Amino acid sequence: VLINGETGDWLHATDRGLLYGDGLFETVAVIEGKPMLWQRHFRRLQLGCERLRIPPPLPDLLFAESLAALDPHAPRQVLKIIITRGRGARGYAPPRDVVPTRIIGTSPWPDLPEWAFQEGIRVRFCDARLGHNPALAGIKHLNRLEQVVARMEWQDAEIQEGLMLDRDDKVIEGTMSNLFVINERGLLTPDLHQCGVAGVMRELVMDVAVDLGIAVTTGQVDRPMLRQARGLFLTNSLIGIWPVRELDGYGYPTDSIDRRLLRETMVQGFGGPRESRA
Amino acid sequence: VLINGETGDWLHATDRGLLYGDGLFETVAVIEGKPMLWQRHFRRLQLGCERLRIPPPLPDLLFAESLAALDPHAPRQVLKIIITRGRGARGYAPPRDVVPTRIIGTSPWPDLPEWAFQEGIRVRFCDARLGHNPALAGIKHLNRLEQVVARMEWQDAEIQEGLMLDRDDKVIEGTMSNLFVINERGLLTPDLHQCGVAGVMRELVMDVAVDLGIAVTTGQVDRPMLRQARGLFLTNSLIGIWPVRELDGYGYPTDSIDRRLLRETMVQGFGGPRESRA
Repeated sequence: VLINGETGDWLHATDRGLLYGDGLFETVAVIEGKPMLWQRHFRRLQLGCERLRIPPPLPDLLFAESLAALDPHAPRQVLKIIITRGRGARGYAPPRDVVPTRIIGTSPWPDLPEWAFQEGIRVRFCDARLGHNPALAGIKHLNRLEQVVARMEWQDAEIQEGLMLDRDDKVIEGTMSNLFVINERGLLTPDLHQCGVAGVMRELVMDVAVDLGIAVTTGQVDRPMLRQARGLFLTNSLIGIWPVRELDGYGYPTDSIDRRLLRETMVQGFGGPRESRA
Repeated sequence: VLINGETGDWLHATDRGLLYGDGLFETVAVIEGKPMLWQRHFRRLQLGCERLRIPPPLPDLLFAESLAALDPHAPRQVLKIIITRGRGARGYAPPRDVVPTRIIGTSPWPDLPEWAFQEGIRVRFCDARLGHNPALAGIKHLNRLEQVVARMEWQDAEIQEGLMLDRDDKVIEGTMSNLFVINERGLLTPDLHQCGVAGVMRELVMDVAVDLGIAVTTGQVDRPMLRQARGLFLTNSLIGIWPVRELDGYGYPTDSIDRRLLRETMVQGFGGPRESRA
């Protein structure tokens, strides 16, 4: 782990990242030493910093430190970047002179089930709801107890993800992924102005779809719309695209995702079609 | 700072307290070496641990470590206790075997304006709203970005606190304090089942009021009810009771708080009447 450019695994106990979750993070897929979708990750981090009024890291410095933190021998690895508002006196008011903390580390590529890409995954609805907060919606901040609480609802290893609704019964996202609904008009993905994380892979899928002439709508999604869907899929920076095979016992076809969309997303998100990653 | 009983200021960068704000904290007033309202603080911490399913600390161990962390020469100091879910692999799912992290440290007594107790404070309404989340409401968890964002709304040092509303326009609490409304029936304090922190000093004030035969209601509070109030006051473990002198330009009498309530709260919360603390 690199903390502010220095090697070391330890963070000061008065860092506001710990005290209040006062910071942001990014989880980046690294393939053959190359951080994928770097510009998109950096832009979201920058947007989060603006929203929380944390001085953003210098792009070149962050990129250089990220490369320095990588395991040079790993064909695939996960890069995690955390930016906090740094140390401060007790109390919620940020210090006058903020010196952010940069924490950059890697972890092994997760043991993702390879069949999930082909056969699709099983998903459940979570009981835990997402609270509305437009000031924090969309950005990937460090306040993630809602996701932790939701993820604790099931231990069944056969269920790969849980969908979360907001207090108005709108479907927002998975605990660690974004949702796309395939319907007769094209793709629909939940609006994230009140809650949820605007994933980098979600953004890529939307851009690729538009390039391919597939209509993409951002809007309100409720449970009946999921029932009527031709298919569902989930996205994040590490899984790419996972078709949903079953949602709380209701089955979906897993071959309804446009092949070009799947392929182009994999090329841009992981440097090659899924097949080459096995 | 004591971390898991060892002296040291540094926390591992993979601690879930940092990664997700996955933990709880307490801020305890310490007067002449005695942590005040210890049982109440411990009970809330325990309740938070149960809610988040973090193994709670052993009461005797936590108390002994808290005493060991104190500055033996400080007449007044602040004890901060943080309990996190400890280290874990990447991902929101907690590890099977949780080894919580205990972080215990002290800071100097804050520079609270002594006149505030007599003359009352100036308060504003914050634009930032509290999101609803019954699973997290009441407990003092580490996800505090809502409070940080609200506290960033003003720099005017003449304004000591900001009141936060929820998405239904109900008044919930201050950024760092709980609210009491004095009306013709007695005391009214906002219901905290959807959001907010159930403060230890709030609980003490409620108990003391009941002992004194003052009616205390927990319920919904809206802005018109604040306008009609005989008085308002704010509570937390370090300030005790602060009367509100002015809320967004609207004035309140600061002598409407029952003298016995004020005195008894100060005795139990700080070991003596306010006068002796100057």
